[in-house]
Amino acid sequence: MPHPLLDLPPLTADRFAAVERRVASLLATENDVVIMQGEALLPLEGCIRGGARPGSTALNVVTGPYGQTFGNWLRDCGATVVDLEVPFHTAVSADRIEHALAAHPEIDFVSLVHAEAATGNTNPVAEIGSVVRAHGALFMVDAVASVAAEPLYTDAWGVDLCVIGAQKAMGGPAGVSAVSVSERAWARFAANPRAPRRSYLSLLDWRERWIDTGRRALPHAPAQLEMLALEACLDRIEAAGLSTVTARHAATAAAVRAGALALGGGLEPYAREAAEAAPVATTLRTPAGTDATELVAKALAADPSLPLVAGGGALAAEMIRVNHYGAAAAPDVVHACLTALGTALEEALGGAGRPVDQEAARRAADEAWREGLSDAAGDRPRHDG
Amino acid sequence: MPHPLLDLPPLTADRFAAVERRVASLLATENDVVIMQGEALLPLEGCIRGGARPGSTALNVVTGPYGQTFGNWLRDCGATVVDLEVPFHTAVSADRIEHALAAHPEIDFVSLVHAEAATGNTNPVAEIGSVVRAHGALFMVDAVASVAAEPLYTDAWGVDLCVIGAQKAMGGPAGVSAVSVSERAWARFAANPRAPRRSYLSLLDWRERWIDTGRRALPHAPAQLEMLALEACLDRIEAAGLSTVTARHAATAAAVRAGALALGGGLEPYAREAAEAAPVATTLRTPAGTDATELVAKALAADPSLPLVAGGGALAAEMIRVNHYGAAAAPDVVHACLTALGTALEEALGGAGRPVDQEAARRAADEAWREGLSDAAGDRPRHDG
Amino acid sequence: MPHPLLDLPPLTADRFAAVERRVASLLATENDVVIMQGEALLPLEGCIRGGARPGSTALNVVTGPYGQTFGNWLRDCGATVVDLEVPFHTAVSADRIEHALAAHPEIDFVSLVHAEAATGNTNPVAEIGSVVRAHGALFMVDAVASVAAEPLYTDAWGVDLCVIGAQKAMGGPAGVSAVSVSERAWARFAANPRAPRRSYLSLLDWRERWIDTGRRALPHAPAQLEMLALEACLDRIEAAGLSTVTARHAATAAAVRAGALALGGGLEPYAREAAEAAPVATTLRTPAGTDATELVAKALAADPSLPLVAGGGALAAEMIRVNHYGAAAAPDVVHACLTALGTALEEALGGAGRPVDQEAARRAADEAWREGLSDAAGDRPRHDG
Amino acid sequence: MPHPLLDLPPLTADRFAAVERRVASLLATENDVVIMQGEALLPLEGCIRGGARPGSTALNVVTGPYGQTFGNWLRDCGATVVDLEVPFHTAVSADRIEHALAAHPEIDFVSLVHAEAATGNTNPVAEIGSVVRAHGALFMVDAVASVAAEPLYTDAWGVDLCVIGAQKAMGGPAGVSAVSVSERAWARFAANPRAPRRSYLSLLDWRERWIDTGRRALPHAPAQLEMLALEACLDRIEAAGLSTVTARHAATAAAVRAGALALGGGLEPYAREAAEAAPVATTLRTPAGTDATELVAKALAADPSLPLVAGGGALAAEMIRVNHYGAAAAPDVVHACLTALGTALEEALGGAGRPVDQEAARRAADEAWREGLSDAAGDRPRHDG
Repeated sequence: MPHPLLDLPPLTADRFAAVERRVASLLATENDVVIMQGEALLPLEGCIRGGARPGSTALNVVTGPYGQTFGNWLRDCGATVVDLEVPFHTAVSADRIEHALAAHPEIDFVSLVHAEAATGNTNPVAEIGSVVRAHGALFMVDAVASVAAEPLYTDAWGVDLCVIGAQKAMGGPAGVSAVSVSERAWARFAANPRAPRRSYLSLLDWRERWIDTGRRALPHAPAQLEMLALEACLDRIEAAGLSTVTARHAATAAAVRAGALALGGGLEPYAREAAEAAPVATTLRTPAGTDATELVAKALAADPSLPLVAGGGALAAEMIRVNHYGAAAAPDVVHACLTALGTALEEALGGAGRPVDQEAARRAADEAWREGLSDAAGDRPRHDG
Repeated sequence: MPHPLLDLPPLTADRFAAVERRVASLLATENDVVIMQGEALLPLEGCIRGGARPGSTALNVVTGPYGQTFGNWLRDCGATVVDLEVPFHTAVSADRIEHALAAHPEIDFVSLVHAEAATGNTNPVAEIGSVVRAHGALFMVDAVASVAAEPLYTDAWGVDLCVIGAQKAMGGPAGVSAVSVSERAWARFAANPRAPRRSYLSLLDWRERWIDTGRRALPHAPAQLEMLALEACLDRIEAAGLSTVTARHAATAAAVRAGALALGGGLEPYAREAAEAAPVATTLRTPAGTDATELVAKALAADPSLPLVAGGGALAAEMIRVNHYGAAAAPDVVHACLTALGTALEEALGGAGRPVDQEAARRAADEAWREGLSDAAGDRPRHDG
Repeated sequence: MPHPLLDLPPLTADRFAAVERRVASLLATENDVVIMQGEALLPLEGCIRGGARPGSTALNVVTGPYGQTFGNWLRDCGATVVDLEVPFHTAVSADRIEHALAAHPEIDFVSLVHAEAATGNTNPVAEIGSVVRAHGALFMVDAVASVAAEPLYTDAWGVDLCVIGAQKAMGGPAGVSAVSVSERAWARFAANPRAPRRSYLSLLDWRERWIDTGRRALPHAPAQLEMLALEACLDRIEAAGLSTVTARHAATAAAVRAGALALGGGLEPYAREAAEAAPVATTLRTPAGTDATELVAKALAADPSLPLVAGGGALAAEMIRVNHYGAAAAPDVVHACLTALGTALEEALGGAGRPVDQEAARRAADEAWREGLSDAAGDRPRHDG
Repeated sequence: MPHPLLDLPPLTADRFAAVERRVASLLATENDVVIMQGEALLPLEGCIRGGARPGSTALNVVTGPYGQTFGNWLRDCGATVVDLEVPFHTAVSADRIEHALAAHPEIDFVSLVHAEAATGNTNPVAEIGSVVRAHGALFMVDAVASVAAEPLYTDAWGVDLCVIGAQKAMGGPAGVSAVSVSERAWARFAANPRAPRRSYLSLLDWRERWIDTGRRALPHAPAQLEMLALEACLDRIEAAGLSTVTARHAATAAAVRAGALALGGGLEPYAREAAEAAPVATTLRTPAGTDATELVAKALAADPSLPLVAGGGALAAEMIRVNHYGAAAAPDVVHACLTALGTALEEALGGAGRPVDQEAARRAADEAWREGLSDAAGDRPRHDG
């Protein structure tokens, strides 16, 4: 049978620049936004190699696997690294950051992951930002797992380098990504002789060849299809309203949490405080005597489309992660996950352990979803302010 | 600049049949579903030319322009037509249908539009269905503007022929469409010597060449891209949950209605009863001394993406329609429409007439949106039952 | 894993009209072109139901299965039908048409398939056209399998109704199709009280609602994705040049024919004359003692992507069809088909019968391909004239 | 108007690996192929930063702007660079490479651009490869502008690092690219302590995380849409046959060259020898008294879709480049370019200078196109051997 073919429109410089402006609006920033032609790891690496150098000291907040990657890059650049390790069941507090900065006045770079999809936590960037700004260090935030899932106010929070990808809550492509760069960050890069230049990693190249020349010609051929898909997801977010999209994610996270607690059987949210739970993923600790990998396998055997994964590495036996971003941030997906987990738990516990109540779980989830949306609707003026 | 090209996967018979089953599930029907390779007018015409013939009598409920089209087809087939005209500001009641059937016991076909996008009304199909079923006539419903926007229970409501397109609340393509066909309807077609056969209009052809042969080979080359887009929108609806999608439309309709009432200036919803207002579009009567076409032009000049249109024909001067389906069923679109209409009204009234209060309009819309979603969430068990 | 999503641009009336003009240029016609929103069967049926009526007499040239379909429609419209059956191994000559018209001076409609994909023949439309024009009948040609594969001069040849689809040599979508309509044809339709009106089948509707109103608004929502795919394939044909695309098909047909003759084993082209062989498909008669269905199955087992099919119906045992249109009109596909058929034949004959020489087949195919292109290049001025 | 949306299939690890294998086949290599998630500059930079280090000496053949970029990277890595500058009107000979290697026995890395789109030359990689292999240096070839346009035998020619993008003759996307890596190249990278590791630039990361782990999980989220578009263009090339695609480019280049020579007016091909002319672009020197930028502007004013550009930098006044790759490698595009250039030249010369003969130009182009295809068809066995 013949394959239908579609031609897609070319991507002009003007259209590329318009996408940058729309991303800036999404990030609530007046700073330059650079769309890089690769996965979000590309701008993250570009930021660290641009900002770090021998002689600099970085505070690297490690709340999950990406924090470890950032530490490696920082060390590779010759920076002294102060790693602040945070246990998986909690967010990092602004207080801890403040203590670390006080103990190391020489810190001139802070790297933080906003929401950790892997561990299900989200960190208080607003509070941390004012502490970092008071100290004077450059502040880089990895917002890949938070953008469009929770409020993100780059400039109001004092974030110098805010990196996003579209593949989570934005429901978009993974192959292009973006970073907002403050004037302070540009100055830091320019003063760093080891900052990438004439390189695919280089943010300074984008400034020199694209921004400073009036955004008239792209420095190299763009990933046109990924850019078109990024445009398409911006269209959808703008039509729905960003606050509606974040409210949907918040309500979903609340529903999964409430449903899991009501399900019983000994299942417990990892994140002790609801306020510290990421809106894109909920992590659950499995009851003693059960194995997370087996429970997930059982649930996926019933429905392979469910967004369930067992924790990575050491957590494979005890952590279940429910991903709920993009199209999966919806009450029916919550219901389906709770039902599948409940059934798998019942089988695994075989009557032993605490009882499992699927009906109660679904009721609690519905209730939390409804309240979550109401709260969000009430928040509207504040979100826009 | 080169145009990127995408090959799309071919559409096998199995995949085509799977789309039919998923549409059947969306329509809550056990009947055969036929996906026709054209706009929804194609199955609507196929149903009427299949079901009507000289000697048959049809009750044609005219609540908008499509009812007129149906009447023309029915007459063209040689049927006697009883047109039941319904004023634009109201739905048709089951009582009126019952009276008409009692007055014309020979009626053997009833055609009805579920929701009228053009006039903003929705008709009580469940109640009408039980009256029609008691009478024994074949019941055809045009659900293009209601599917995915409000509950639709084809079998429970006794609908013999339920026609849908994907281009409104489903957010899908317009180029293919579907119809569910009850056994009674198949029998009627088969007994009609003038029913289309060996024709692009023919439902009997689909039965003979596709259904009766085990759905092994398509009778002609399908519109592959439109089918893939239909699949894609079914994916999205299933992921979000149908009840979530309908709840979003209901809440949006409630928000537009409440906002318009609170806006003041003399603007009034056409549909007198909220329960009779269509969830895909809200029609508003403009105050004396203003012109709907001018108000809409002014609002669109400010933002051409707003889903506002002036009424057609005789209503061009006094009816404004706010379309709110698919991606436009969202609170930010509601806000934007109310603001644009409020500004246009203020200018048009120039201090004369009743005052316009945009802030109150937005507040009322938010409140109604929140309540609409809560009601919908509470409804969940009933919707699924 | 997330599914990337692409938004596609909407299809405006201007863009739709531009596609019509580009199709008109492809068909070398000054007549109106109507793009119908369905497979090519839709305009074919529309033309016959528009042009035929009780009292009219049609000459229906049956060179394959579509001719039978046309005959059924003609009879269904009440026309008297003179079927001119043509054996599968030959084209119809203008002489035979002339005799038929002389024998039935009352004939006022002639229907003909230009190239028959099913049987591998192509008919001399230019010569037949001048005979039909002299007689005065309306002349409808089904050019679905010839457009972009061989010269097609609608107006110069006196074709009143020329119907195309894009799914064969154009390499485009099947879900929309086109027909050019001469003034004589419009007049015939308008004078036919039984011509479809207010119907999905109606060409008169398109004239009244689209052409006569200045092509400002489409009469119903188009199959946007199929239209975009049609645009995309017109882009490709225009960039390559129509004469290059037809030359590629002609050279491929010559290569398959020459290769099959050189392959030996008793394989023979169905079309006795090369000039009567369709450029989109070559039909081959299998040697005694072999079965076409088995040979094709064997060849496809080795490579399921090969464009080989066994003949339909009574010809299933003895006819193999090699489709070579669109992307398959290429020398490597010819090589692969000859190799696969040669291997299957060798196995089936098992040493009996005439010898099979794969190397000679490929050499003859290459030679014919080269000559085919040279001839075509030399033809350029004539094609454009 | 609603925007149709298409969901595209996800890209699994297996599918990604299959694309790698198909690219390897296109490059005629048994070496590992890595598909990098960015424009071809990414693997080019990765290769040079992996292969060069302080203490290494590189022979950098500069036949155009990319050679300058490679020199900068090599120097940035601390390598000693021997730049071999080649005038724009000629290719580099294997002799010159041999002399340079003899003069600098310490050379351990050679970088070369196969075909230079910017200058219209192509270099004899086969001959150069055997010289470099005899010397023992690592051999990197930038084949972005040659792949699918002319023969490319990576392994037979001794190329250690062969980098391609799909955006030229392949007619594919620009946002992903590929490199084949020989065992010698892997060993060089592994022994280089400054080779990128844990970096978006790192080829070693791809080996460690993707190849050495059995290609089971991608190291990071791929640019799915660009990968699908790459797959789609491989489909098309494989269906047509690679040798057919290269033949089409060769015949087009011959046609443009012959046409330009026959056009007269003083226009001359830059590349003195036809064998040194790139098959993707032809560069032409404009006659005295005319300005290339003005001629191109005039031609594009008549038809903005023509693939004509004025030379960059110092050559802006005297060099016209005709790009003829992908869909533009077709005789009608050649005709259109010659006609537009002829008309612009006639106007510019205003009767002065040598006469312009458009008809002769088109005739010569047709002749050369026909011969070019015949030669290519005759070449088939050699190409496949």
